[in-house]
Amino acid sequence: MKPREKLTGLRLRLYEIIFEADTAAGRLFDLVLLACIVGSVITIMIESVQSIRALYGPWFRGLELFFTGIFTLEYLARAWVVPQRRRYVFSFFGIVDLLSILPSYLALLIPGAQSLMVIRSVRLIRIFRILKLSRHIGESQNLVRALKASQHKITVFLVTVLTTVVITGTLMYMIEGAEHGFTSIPRSIYWAIVTMTTVGYGDIAPQTTLGQTMASFIMILGYGILAVPTGIVSAEMVQLKQQEKISTQVCPHCLKDGHDADAVFCKFCGSSLNA
Amino acid sequence: MKPREKLTGLRLRLYEIIFEADTAAGRLFDLVLLACIVGSVITIMIESVQSIRALYGPWFRGLELFFTGIFTLEYLARAWVVPQRRRYVFSFFGIVDLLSILPSYLALLIPGAQSLMVIRSVRLIRIFRILKLSRHIGESQNLVRALKASQHKITVFLVTVLTTVVITGTLMYMIEGAEHGFTSIPRSIYWAIVTMTTVGYGDIAPQTTLGQTMASFIMILGYGILAVPTGIVSAEMVQLKQQEKISTQVCPHCLKDGHDADAVFCKFCGSSLNA
Amino acid sequence: MKPREKLTGLRLRLYEIIFEADTAAGRLFDLVLLACIVGSVITIMIESVQSIRALYGPWFRGLELFFTGIFTLEYLARAWVVPQRRRYVFSFFGIVDLLSILPSYLALLIPGAQSLMVIRSVRLIRIFRILKLSRHIGESQNLVRALKASQHKITVFLVTVLTTVVITGTLMYMIEGAEHGFTSIPRSIYWAIVTMTTVGYGDIAPQTTLGQTMASFIMILGYGILAVPTGIVSAEMVQLKQQEKISTQVCPHCLKDGHDADAVFCKFCGSSLNA
Amino acid sequence: MKPREKLTGLRLRLYEIIFEADTAAGRLFDLVLLACIVGSVITIMIESVQSIRALYGPWFRGLELFFTGIFTLEYLARAWVVPQRRRYVFSFFGIVDLLSILPSYLALLIPGAQSLMVIRSVRLIRIFRILKLSRHIGESQNLVRALKASQHKITVFLVTVLTTVVITGTLMYMIEGAEHGFTSIPRSIYWAIVTMTTVGYGDIAPQTTLGQTMASFIMILGYGILAVPTGIVSAEMVQLKQQEKISTQVCPHCLKDGHDADAVFCKFCGSSLNA
Repeated sequence: MKPREKLTGLRLRLYEIIFEADTAAGRLFDLVLLACIVGSVITIMIESVQSIRALYGPWFRGLELFFTGIFTLEYLARAWVVPQRRRYVFSFFGIVDLLSILPSYLALLIPGAQSLMVIRSVRLIRIFRILKLSRHIGESQNLVRALKASQHKITVFLVTVLTTVVITGTLMYMIEGAEHGFTSIPRSIYWAIVTMTTVGYGDIAPQTTLGQTMASFIMILGYGILAVPTGIVSAEMVQLKQQEKISTQVCPHCLKDGHDADAVFCKFCGSSLNA
Repeated sequence: MKPREKLTGLRLRLYEIIFEADTAAGRLFDLVLLACIVGSVITIMIESVQSIRALYGPWFRGLELFFTGIFTLEYLARAWVVPQRRRYVFSFFGIVDLLSILPSYLALLIPGAQSLMVIRSVRLIRIFRILKLSRHIGESQNLVRALKASQHKITVFLVTVLTTVVITGTLMYMIEGAEHGFTSIPRSIYWAIVTMTTVGYGDIAPQTTLGQTMASFIMILGYGILAVPTGIVSAEMVQLKQQEKISTQVCPHCLKDGHDADAVFCKFCGSSLNA
Repeated sequence: MKPREKLTGLRLRLYEIIFEADTAAGRLFDLVLLACIVGSVITIMIESVQSIRALYGPWFRGLELFFTGIFTLEYLARAWVVPQRRRYVFSFFGIVDLLSILPSYLALLIPGAQSLMVIRSVRLIRIFRILKLSRHIGESQNLVRALKASQHKITVFLVTVLTTVVITGTLMYMIEGAEHGFTSIPRSIYWAIVTMTTVGYGDIAPQTTLGQTMASFIMILGYGILAVPTGIVSAEMVQLKQQEKISTQVCPHCLKDGHDADAVFCKFCGSSLNA
Repeated sequence: MKPREKLTGLRLRLYEIIFEADTAAGRLFDLVLLACIVGSVITIMIESVQSIRALYGPWFRGLELFFTGIFTLEYLARAWVVPQRRRYVFSFFGIVDLLSILPSYLALLIPGAQSLMVIRSVRLIRIFRILKLSRHIGESQNLVRALKASQHKITVFLVTVLTTVVITGTLMYMIEGAEHGFTSIPRSIYWAIVTMTTVGYGDIAPQTTLGQTMASFIMILGYGILAVPTGIVSAEMVQLKQQEKISTQVCPHCLKDGHDADAVFCKFCGSSLNA
């Protein structure tokens, strides 16, 4: 028996609206929630602009109260309606839901908690739950599964990047020194990451000839190293694309699928696929 | 009956010249128009240089008048000749055509409309119409169609980038604060986009150790995330490449497909594919 | 009859040494030439450093004379030895060879021609001729041929980039204006290219909120657009890789090749590949 | 007889612990060593921060002594235990092991050798040895082998980049000159590398119109050129991905290959693949 079959009456009705998207009410709920999340995050963003806050501060506080109210109601409704309450509360989205409203209440109670307010932007993560209901996520889960299969490659890649970046950073600290902005190894490593990812702020840049030569090597090397994740993702994408092409034919004898498009006989039991 | 078959006399003649490219006159029209578009856009560009405008201002105004005249004639000719006038006027290229000439007239009538003049650079979009006549676009339409098939992946990708960028921006606003240039959340989000796309202007850059550590993570994460669109496009390209080679023809004898485009006989049973 | 068969005596001997690489003398010639090219370019590079030129100026002039002498001898030898002189002199490498020595002589004759000296760095291009002798180029010619097949895609791509960059540049010129560094449309277009290629010097950067919003869109859009050339090259590479796998089997009946690895019958004449 | 079979008693026991990872003691040794390496490198990094060194200097010296002691013991143990001592000492990891401890002793003996201390960060390379024991490296060795097969392409690519960068640098030195930061050809080449790899610090940037036009071409060209390594790696990854899936087994009946790794019966003739 699936969890929702335990529910009856209002709880079942609310469950359908909140957790499912195949009724008109469920879809409406998702749309309203999406609007509230986006609206609330935009409010937080605009409020942070000094000049606007000075003028319309109270309005923003009002809007914030309004959104916090809606999200609190939603959180309570979810917690009441869901059959396995504990599991929801400690799930990833349960914690995100709580973090979305908690800072607003803390800011009301404790004056110094003002700075926690920005944590509310985690609200945006909740957009994924709404997308989850549709088939959007399905396809990217294929990609996530595929990338998990490549995790050894990714580990070796990350260790290589880490080692290169630490050794490079150390060398540049030795070569350029504090007078050219490479004041410590961690800061030099920060420079190496900024360089290897081709971001290149230019807040720290090598000044000596030796440093610039080193940097040139790192840039070209970095370009080569960073072709690896692109290659991994591309290969997985090509793979996924080709799996779509694999014949959907089922062996009439052993009922297994996954045969190549050019297969004549079942690769598992040897009986003819056309018979 | 296709639209153009309703046309006779001069309208038919003009239709062939303006909308088709398989007569000598049609190809000449395209070339002259291409030259006018490029010439006009280069004029707009050079005119914007202060020192040149001061010297040759009247010349540019003359050239502009000349190009506007040509494009106005062209617009009127198109509108007169085309069988479904309303559909053309409100089509994408119809609006682009109008936007290409309107600002010049407005600038003559209303003195303050000077600043609208730069809108004329939309003229450049009209190059695509000329290219459209040739087979250039055909191939890229395959790509566009393929990308549409990947639109779920692209949606999830964009939402992921958006969420990462908003949360990162908020955190950096909290960590670095106004004194290091992160004066508001929108500005911090701008910084996050500049960083994740590896543009890295350096006009805003983290100064604190915590901020630089965060930034380092975002850069490496960003590199991983941005491998996704490259992977999507690569996979589609590989796919298109392979489809070109394989014919959809089925062997009339053994009913198998997957034959090369240049195959004459079935590679599985050896019977003629044309029989 | 191939060109070289017309040659006899010393000319044939020199032809073998200069234009071929399958004798010991030919390989030695290539190595010495390679060393001279690299040595000469390094000399030009180091000579440009003010402090070094001040100290060792005469030495560099001596070295330069030495290399110019060698390259002049080589040029004359090539011109004398080659059977189709006119064709060599006006070929790409013929012109490169001339440009490698001409500035040195001009600088001796005309005092003001000093600044032409840097043209000598085209000497480096001649390295490709030496590599050409080996099989290195063979493989990249496959890639060049493959990219030529994608030239319609590449044209559409370049026109798209150009249009985006011009329209973006014009808009930013309108939005940001001269006071934020966007002094003219060409300069704004330069900024747009710096941004879309993710180079991001930061010498020009948007300051207004609207400008930064526009810039954010362009960066993300730019990332998407620039995935296209990577995709095209990746697809061609995958293609080339797979062609290597295509069965090298020749049909025993019609003697054609290019059969798939799983082919049983010849796709051109229908006879069995195994018979 | 494999090397380790010559060992007995304590040496065999230590060999199993140090060089193998299939016993509990061996795995523990790896974990402790991993912790020491990471701990030691973090110590070196933090010690380089001026303000922290001023406060906790002696603590860091103590920690350093501790790690150096452990690594010295480990080095001696390895050298004692290994059957082919000379081969270990002069192997890549043997030298890395020595470089990991030597600077600490030199710094104790010679006061001026302080600056050599940063060489200790090569310790991080030793992480790869620990990973080597697991199957992580196995997969990347496939990639390394695949890239070796592409080395002709990579050579041509590197020569192309080098030539482009030198010629570009020389031209920009001529165009922009010393007053805009392009003080010498090597420095201009450094700028060209910073630009072509899309790092773009902005410490040197073209100021003249001609220079900015040149730079724009280089950026777009650079983007095209740098698609090549990404394409090479992607193609190899796709290749490796496909090889994993296809078994090299040949059907004993019809002699065809290309069967999936999980196939039991031939997909072409239906006979058992194991018979």
